[in-house]
Amino acid sequence: MKYTKITAELLDLIKTAVGADSVFTDEESLSIYCHDETEDLKYYPEVVVKPRDTESVSALLKLCNQYVIPVTPRGGGTGLSGAALPIYGGVLLSMERFKKILSIDTENLQAVVEPGVITQEFMDAVMEKGLLYPIDPSSKGSCFIGGNVAHGSGGPRVVKYGTIREYILNLEVVLPTGEIIWTGANTLKYASGYNLTQLMIGSEGTLAVVTKIVTKLIPRSEQNVLMLASFAENEQACAAVSAIFRAEVIPSALEFMERKGVEWVIKYDDIKFDLKDGINAFLLIEFDGNDMDSIFKDCEKVNEVLEAFGCTDVLFADTAQQKEELWRMRRVMPESVKSNSIYKEEDTVVPRAALPKLINGIKEIGSRYGFESVCYGHAGDGNLHVNIIKAGMSDEAWHNKLKDGIAEIFELTTALGGTISGEHGIGLVQKDFMSIKYSEVHLNLMRGIKNVFDPSGILNPGKIF
Amino acid sequence: MKYTKITAELLDLIKTAVGADSVFTDEESLSIYCHDETEDLKYYPEVVVKPRDTESVSALLKLCNQYVIPVTPRGGGTGLSGAALPIYGGVLLSMERFKKILSIDTENLQAVVEPGVITQEFMDAVMEKGLLYPIDPSSKGSCFIGGNVAHGSGGPRVVKYGTIREYILNLEVVLPTGEIIWTGANTLKYASGYNLTQLMIGSEGTLAVVTKIVTKLIPRSEQNVLMLASFAENEQACAAVSAIFRAEVIPSALEFMERKGVEWVIKYDDIKFDLKDGINAFLLIEFDGNDMDSIFKDCEKVNEVLEAFGCTDVLFADTAQQKEELWRMRRVMPESVKSNSIYKEEDTVVPRAALPKLINGIKEIGSRYGFESVCYGHAGDGNLHVNIIKAGMSDEAWHNKLKDGIAEIFELTTALGGTISGEHGIGLVQKDFMSIKYSEVHLNLMRGIKNVFDPSGILNPGKIF
Repeated sequence: MKYTKITAELLDLIKTAVGADSVFTDEESLSIYCHDETEDLKYYPEVVVKPRDTESVSALLKLCNQYVIPVTPRGGGTGLSGAALPIYGGVLLSMERFKKILSIDTENLQAVVEPGVITQEFMDAVMEKGLLYPIDPSSKGSCFIGGNVAHGSGGPRVVKYGTIREYILNLEVVLPTGEIIWTGANTLKYASGYNLTQLMIGSEGTLAVVTKIVTKLIPRSEQNVLMLASFAENEQACAAVSAIFRAEVIPSALEFMERKGVEWVIKYDDIKFDLKDGINAFLLIEFDGNDMDSIFKDCEKVNEVLEAFGCTDVLFADTAQQKEELWRMRRVMPESVKSNSIYKEEDTVVPRAALPKLINGIKEIGSRYGFESVCYGHAGDGNLHVNIIKAGMSDEAWHNKLKDGIAEIFELTTALGGTISGEHGIGLVQKDFMSIKYSEVHLNLMRGIKNVFDPSGILNPGKIF
Repeated sequence: MKYTKITAELLDLIKTAVGADSVFTDEESLSIYCHDETEDLKYYPEVVVKPRDTESVSALLKLCNQYVIPVTPRGGGTGLSGAALPIYGGVLLSMERFKKILSIDTENLQAVVEPGVITQEFMDAVMEKGLLYPIDPSSKGSCFIGGNVAHGSGGPRVVKYGTIREYILNLEVVLPTGEIIWTGANTLKYASGYNLTQLMIGSEGTLAVVTKIVTKLIPRSEQNVLMLASFAENEQACAAVSAIFRAEVIPSALEFMERKGVEWVIKYDDIKFDLKDGINAFLLIEFDGNDMDSIFKDCEKVNEVLEAFGCTDVLFADTAQQKEELWRMRRVMPESVKSNSIYKEEDTVVPRAALPKLINGIKEIGSRYGFESVCYGHAGDGNLHVNIIKAGMSDEAWHNKLKDGIAEIFELTTALGGTISGEHGIGLVQKDFMSIKYSEVHLNLMRGIKNVFDPSGILNPGKIF
């Protein structure tokens, strides 16, 4: 292994660089930061560093670059691909003290925010100014906006509002060699050389450490309608998805949920929901806007589509509380599954009309490999989260044979024009599958870019490729 | 100079690689491809190659890479930054024979198109299917979609629909070393390693040659309203722009035009327009949607804003013909200015609330350097095209001193949080100004990325940096 272990002398240098009160080596700290939300994986850092400002991050990276000490940046620790796991030990760089919303500029509809701000808190602050920042992953109550940038996060409203890519205008980043740059400009357009802002987004903390984020904001919609459509079969629900867009409406959210996911939510959470026999799939559909007449017209169009695809029942959420309950059902689904079984999560994404083939394929692969799965996710984007359940699988099958089944799922998504992650990233747990999607030539381009930014290979090593 | 001149033997090898009927060395061809729309610049290629398929592009690039022959890719030749000028001679690679729309997939709302398709033709084909591809630069009647990708193009509808970045899902590209890859996936989300699709967009043909383009399509709006607002002063019109968005409406276009631009259009074109005394600036504002009531509500809100900012008159276009006339006035403005005077075009962009400071600054810099300017452009994006007019300037001032004035304009855009090009790119004519915006560290990252893709430096050399 090429990395330097952190000796007492190096620890002193780190303390001098960032301030002793930002450096933690106690067992409790190490055990908090040894995992994220990825399965049950644990990797212990040698030291946890929680700097307060860009200059400290720069000093830390300069030092680690000089001594070739691995540095793993971490946001809220809610990641599902293991990108924040310090697999080579070294420094765990927690950005949790970067928690200031520096400005919400209502003249330009832009905000400047530090990466350690919790996504929901940022959304609320923006909302108070009458504006919208629409990137709300399920983990919005605990994830950091910096982690969202690192993973190119999505969430349910991508279907109307786009991913985080469309909201990040400019980033202050510290390069692994310690230099500080702004990647772009605070503008809605940018044709001034290679777009490093876009390159940073989704690079999972392997190219630089983000220390300030300039986001675009948009006017807030005042009204919305939420409906839950029930189907007898997964395939019907999935087939309805692309038909909804062909009816020339764009919902602000269009989520798919399998029956088993709902069953486990009911078991895990205190949500009351009348789960009828014979119903096996749901679409949660939201429309927003400022004009209720216009929203209702869209709802009517969607109703016609739903009927044509065999929808048996549509429930409209009448009150804010009912809306929140339906949304909560979707949002707590990952935790509910996790609390019920050992599982692995795959983040498949395909062109949306390929969803029926995808879900049928997943079930068929499962039947051959002997695994059950619970699928749910952002169907409007063709993005299905596949929770693979250990249940009755033997440990041997789980640890050895399952990987081939997952590989088959990714071969399927790739064959359908899709890819191996829509929003969770590659991190540690998907990197072995990269060769399904990419040729060696393609991977070498990515490795080459990595090397341009991080010639010593200290920043989040062992991730993506 | 490190590049190999094309000898008779090398020409034969090129003909063998791509087919003799794709290779042109006659004087007429060389003189057509020696310029684009950038000022009066001319650089002659040694040979023009017009391949028909991806494999031929690959064979050509392999050969040129082996012999270190420069290759300059070219789309419609409408560029304003000189990116398609073969400044080191070598091969001019015209993509004009890549003109097939391969599919318009109404199930997935995606299209696959070759890079030599004229943007307007693609838009029309999409429109026939009841869908919208909204990226329509002023040159849409002659520019190629491949060139739009290379420059990260915008156009008037970016303000509502976003730039081309938000519509390009995946690209087939040929690397300078001849390998062919798809950069991403045909999906609305992508978190599977570094986003090479986004890196390609705006890279001005310096990293790879695009041979197929997968675009997102959206439902078409059925209705629109177009209005022209008149102001006594540039500053008032520019100040109204950000106020319009603060009124919580999003126009589908919001263009600024200075009086002088309109005067020259009237002189150059056969457009009839009653240009009143005392009016010095215009905003062309469009709203679209499917519901006229909703559109009219937005118009009312905007009218209140316009009044508050001293707008003296609002003209509503009543008929399709009137709409087309107003749009044409805006679209022919660049040609009109060009036909009236030697000029240089700068593509300034700032956060939109900084527009009044930008336009006042441009005029103040002009008065110090002795140049006149005509400004117009996509005000809703903070993007102002500045046409600098030679008029009474001496040749000496035009060729020598003006550059300092332009540098001051870019120092201003940078100080205001903006950058040196919003949508025209850097190409040849802006590259000397890159150091105003970027540090050497930043430029070295770009150079490093270039080197990863193009180690021999054959692809569009001498551009961007």
